[in-house]
Amino acid sequence: MNKKGIAASKGYAIGKVFIKAHEEIVITDAKVNDIEAEKAKLDAALKASHTQLEAVKAKAEESMGADKAAVFEAHITLLDDPEFTGAMSLEIENNSINAMKAVENVTNTFVMIFESMEDAYMRERAADIKDVSKRIISNLAGRGGDDFAITEENTVVVAHDLTPSDTAQLDRTKVSGFITNIGGRTSHAAIMARTLEIPAVLGLGDITECVKNGDKIIVDGLTGDVIINPSEEVIAEYEAKKAKFQAEQEELKKLIEVKTVTKAGKRVEVCGNIGKASDVDQVIANGGDGIGLFRTEFLYMDRDQAPTEEEQYEAYKHVLEKISGPVVIRTLDIGGDKTLPYLPLPQEMNPFLGYRAIRLCLDRKEIFKVQLRALLRASVYGDLRVMFPMISGIQEFEQAKAVVEECKAELTAEGKKFSDTIQWGIMVEIPAAAVMADELAKHVDFFSIGTNDLIQYTLAADRMSEKVSYLYNPMHPAVLRLIKMTIDGAHSQGKWCGMCGEMAGDETAIPTLVEYGLDEFSMSATSILNAKKLIMEN
Amino acid sequence: MNKKGIAASKGYAIGKVFIKAHEEIVITDAKVNDIEAEKAKLDAALKASHTQLEAVKAKAEESMGADKAAVFEAHITLLDDPEFTGAMSLEIENNSINAMKAVENVTNTFVMIFESMEDAYMRERAADIKDVSKRIISNLAGRGGDDFAITEENTVVVAHDLTPSDTAQLDRTKVSGFITNIGGRTSHAAIMARTLEIPAVLGLGDITECVKNGDKIIVDGLTGDVIINPSEEVIAEYEAKKAKFQAEQEELKKLIEVKTVTKAGKRVEVCGNIGKASDVDQVIANGGDGIGLFRTEFLYMDRDQAPTEEEQYEAYKHVLEKISGPVVIRTLDIGGDKTLPYLPLPQEMNPFLGYRAIRLCLDRKEIFKVQLRALLRASVYGDLRVMFPMISGIQEFEQAKAVVEECKAELTAEGKKFSDTIQWGIMVEIPAAAVMADELAKHVDFFSIGTNDLIQYTLAADRMSEKVSYLYNPMHPAVLRLIKMTIDGAHSQGKWCGMCGEMAGDETAIPTLVEYGLDEFSMSATSILNAKKLIMEN
Repeated sequence: MNKKGIAASKGYAIGKVFIKAHEEIVITDAKVNDIEAEKAKLDAALKASHTQLEAVKAKAEESMGADKAAVFEAHITLLDDPEFTGAMSLEIENNSINAMKAVENVTNTFVMIFESMEDAYMRERAADIKDVSKRIISNLAGRGGDDFAITEENTVVVAHDLTPSDTAQLDRTKVSGFITNIGGRTSHAAIMARTLEIPAVLGLGDITECVKNGDKIIVDGLTGDVIINPSEEVIAEYEAKKAKFQAEQEELKKLIEVKTVTKAGKRVEVCGNIGKASDVDQVIANGGDGIGLFRTEFLYMDRDQAPTEEEQYEAYKHVLEKISGPVVIRTLDIGGDKTLPYLPLPQEMNPFLGYRAIRLCLDRKEIFKVQLRALLRASVYGDLRVMFPMISGIQEFEQAKAVVEECKAELTAEGKKFSDTIQWGIMVEIPAAAVMADELAKHVDFFSIGTNDLIQYTLAADRMSEKVSYLYNPMHPAVLRLIKMTIDGAHSQGKWCGMCGEMAGDETAIPTLVEYGLDEFSMSATSILNAKKLIMEN
Repeated sequence: MNKKGIAASKGYAIGKVFIKAHEEIVITDAKVNDIEAEKAKLDAALKASHTQLEAVKAKAEESMGADKAAVFEAHITLLDDPEFTGAMSLEIENNSINAMKAVENVTNTFVMIFESMEDAYMRERAADIKDVSKRIISNLAGRGGDDFAITEENTVVVAHDLTPSDTAQLDRTKVSGFITNIGGRTSHAAIMARTLEIPAVLGLGDITECVKNGDKIIVDGLTGDVIINPSEEVIAEYEAKKAKFQAEQEELKKLIEVKTVTKAGKRVEVCGNIGKASDVDQVIANGGDGIGLFRTEFLYMDRDQAPTEEEQYEAYKHVLEKISGPVVIRTLDIGGDKTLPYLPLPQEMNPFLGYRAIRLCLDRKEIFKVQLRALLRASVYGDLRVMFPMISGIQEFEQAKAVVEECKAELTAEGKKFSDTIQWGIMVEIPAAAVMADELAKHVDFFSIGTNDLIQYTLAADRMSEKVSYLYNPMHPAVLRLIKMTIDGAHSQGKWCGMCGEMAGDETAIPTLVEYGLDEFSMSATSILNAKKLIMEN
């Protein structure tokens, strides 16, 4: 039997089905007499969940990098939220019900609230709440957390849905692919599958009903095809496809050491985006020429207070020492949809059009200066390039540079060294910056185009909003014109122009970007080799 | 004594002080025995407030037009809101307190919530709540609503603050100016003063403490100067200034019949923006060549259901018959910050980047078609030009035109007439449309630049957000470039380009817009004559 779903992660898997049971834990509404004992049970389950999530998060950071692991930090925050888990305890106390029922009741209320919102972003939060709730109930049932009992190699995991926790636990040495009933290309599971390089097909509807444990199965992560109990001929056909795909992947590995040159003979840099200092290893392993975007906000997340100058200095120094190419570090881009517990932001009607990134840093110089001092001090360890996010005009860049000068003066007075060859650039992600690129290029050392925001503002379409995300199109002619204006603007002043949004690694966009003369492409580590190949063919 | 405040409305007033008392009604927390009687008192006060507000609104619509009067509709909605006034009744019932105290308690809670928000837009809602609450309490105190006991001509009203209700009640034949302790150029009071053409200086701090009733006072609405008990010499000086200003205003009136031609000999149209069919009279009285923007959403507001085809047809017909020039009608621009009670919208994280205007109309064709049919039927009565808001690319325009074709086919089948010379254009208010203007101009009959949104998106700065409104700058070089690209794009295809945002009436912008070759300027009726003069000088 054949099924077709959403191709979510490339590659082929030919293996045996392992059905991840849709763990049905029966929850009764039995009343309890010993309320304190029930509350203690809940507390123990919450603590166990906490420990498990810390472990899942650590593992995810190691295998997938800090930004992909951030979802688990959100889960831990939920566990610590008195409005959520605190309400469970109250529920036991007020209604003398058992702990599982209390968890279920509170979860239902929260999920109902979030699911009733028509915004995709908010609905995603409902999925997080369910994931955490499931974990607490599983711990209350004594089933522990996440372990998959997968012992055989070449296993294809079949599940109704894979939560982020489930996905992070997959053992790449045993699991050759996974398929699910629900989920799409942009779900957490899909993003993680691509990072882990496990072929995956999602959104198959009723696949859990169509297979049994031990069935032979083929997963085609390129087309979305799934073939159950295929004939020997079909297996042979897919073995050949798989071999070819793997050979291509092997072939790609030869590009690790190769410098990327376009057909026209232009040397371009292909770099990696990272969220945490240790992510640099994956970029090097995938042949990145350098770091095109270090999202420093991850240094600020998952903590009670801002990182010290020393902590930041160590992080920047680590990356600069590890990689021999250029390292582009973006200063703090907080606000919009990213918040910090220790930095309360104003409630705004349209946060994407609000107080964020450089606007916040210029307003809160005491925060900005800590980062700039750390960057300056680390600059002696490599080829540092600093860029400011959300620049709308020359004035903001000059203001930011003035703060840099203040920091330099302080460091000089303290006898601390910094490099005098740091490049200072800007993110081009606001339409105004793209429109004025030729003028801005006179003042900055480089541009890096941030396509996610640039597209959003140019089309006035929030890609998080389900009702208008159809308008979000990287290949919209207006977006392409602004990209070309930005590249031409940089070149008119002898400056270089890179791109660090998702579009830089997009196969359909790369030929156009090469044609426009983009100098640097920065993307997820796992996309680098494929991008190098494509760039060399164009 | 001299004071300096914010010049909020042009002109000179030389008159006598009338201090509008900061009505202090003492509210006790006396308990009541007869709860039902107290609730009846509250109900009576609410009813009285309702009647007064309907009258204020009607008066405001007549003197200032529908869009300025919309704030009173918001007040009426508040009066009808069970969460607000319903809570007052409950407060009496639950705590046996008197009605005034109940109103005060509920108001304080609501005001606290809204004032704690750091967003200017939300804080403005707090002002509305206070205004309504004050009215209810005044009615409970038997003081009635809004009447000013101003009998003398040449009165300068001095107040701590003027609420929208206060301002709408000012008698232009008696009041020659007003000044307040608080408020700024964009407050409701300032906007209303400019519409009523009453000189005003706001934000004077403690002006109510510096004057007494009957003091002589000079108000300079151009510089923000206020002179208390001036010398005869100073009075003479200002009498001369006032005479000169009035002569200039009279001189301007001569331009009512004049066709506007730039120094280079180009004929341009100066038109009015309206929100309601009856607003057309003020545009004609001020010498407008036509209507450059009919904001049809006001037809949809202030009601329980959408206006019928017949109602819309009558409104459009009225305007087309009344004015001999072109009438540009914008199709429904709802969403963003404008909502309708009978049209629930999704909750979005960034409504300005969301489901609104043409996006909503193309999705809800049943609503869109009613308006298009009404427009088509009215088209036989004048020079109708229809424009679609928030167009980001050719596809949306073609989709909208396809719906128009559907409507035409229906009308033809029904034997109903429509003109075949209607022009079909778009608002250029999304950066993508400005960037692609040369291409879009091949498909549309005209452009009208909507600067308020265009500036907001180009600079990624919500002008409602207090923290970033400093970035909102019509003269930002990127904004100017996009405006020039739009005008050049239109002309490259022989099409005309207008502007209907606030910038079109802005004295500092007009010389540049004339230089760029803008064909049509559309603005508030009261700005038309001054704009005509400026355009003819450039």
